[in-house]
Amino acid sequence: MAGKVTVLRLSHRRSRDVRVTSHCALVSRAFGADGFLLCGERDEAMLLSANKAARKWGGGFGADYCDNPRKFAREFDGAKVHLTMYGLPLMAEIGKIRRRLAKENLLVIVGSEKVPAEFYGIVDFNIAVGSQPHSEVAALAVFLHELFEGRELEKKFANAKIRIIPSQNGKNVEKT
Amino acid sequence: MAGKVTVLRLSHRRSRDVRVTSHCALVSRAFGADGFLLCGERDEAMLLSANKAARKWGGGFGADYCDNPRKFAREFDGAKVHLTMYGLPLMAEIGKIRRRLAKENLLVIVGSEKVPAEFYGIVDFNIAVGSQPHSEVAALAVFLHELFEGRELEKKFANAKIRIIPSQNGKNVEKT
Repeated sequence: MAGKVTVLRLSHRRSRDVRVTSHCALVSRAFGADGFLLCGERDEAMLLSANKAARKWGGGFGADYCDNPRKFAREFDGAKVHLTMYGLPLMAEIGKIRRRLAKENLLVIVGSEKVPAEFYGIVDFNIAVGSQPHSEVAALAVFLHELFEGRELEKKFANAKIRIIPSQNGKNVEKT
Repeated sequence: MAGKVTVLRLSHRRSRDVRVTSHCALVSRAFGADGFLLCGERDEAMLLSANKAARKWGGGFGADYCDNPRKFAREFDGAKVHLTMYGLPLMAEIGKIRRRLAKENLLVIVGSEKVPAEFYGIVDFNIAVGSQPHSEVAALAVFLHELFEGRELEKKFANAKIRIIPSQNGKNVEKT
């Protein structure tokens, strides 16, 4: 049985990061992670909004705080990945990470600005989604997309109140 | 010979979108697009920053304004894709889009809030990177990642002033 995937977002700052962190939470859910943990400044509105979206669109995803990310990451029982442009190439490493997830839980750490050096040593994998500057939102999405080999895009979300019927023209939304 | 890929970002608002739009521009470059066009509010700082990153990290990428996105999209000579959660599934459609890119240029439209209905009709493909709410940054990254089949992550950027040497521990940066 496969493990669960939790995304840990470091160093959130309410004023600056609200949209990027919200996108990280939504991406975590939409690309198949089970949970999202917010570190840094407390931001009730951001968490409420992520959990509200999860209830509306379905699935078992939940977002919560993590007060001590160092302790949490150190003591996490499972495989640990840190997404960083300085790490090893995603495509070369993802097979190993998939095999770890097949038998244990997985923690995926995404930073904001500077990630404390300590985290590079706590994790099992420092992974670069390309060695170019871009976006933690993009890195997280492409990482999860490769982890689940594209199947996450067909995931069914249980108990959804609303669902989109794919369409070439316009918007086709079903209320359930 | 393959065509060029241009990303068109609709409806930018300086106050609200600066980081998300910047992430879209950086993702466009890092995931292999050739150019980025900003629509909506003029934002010199955002474009300067994207072009500065491109000079520092190398490659031929450039970011610029587009004053009339409707006209630009209508008259664009090539295949046109709009990324929207209401569209057809990425994985079912991407093969067709790759074949179009093999012989012509490609325009990729990403919206901000509400995209005017007109754009759904202007494009050849309305594509959903999952039919769940998440992020235009994520949608763009995963779309380009599938378009280039992962090869974009190994792209060499010519004339880079700085380059990362992938590493499991810490940061290994080479100035060239």
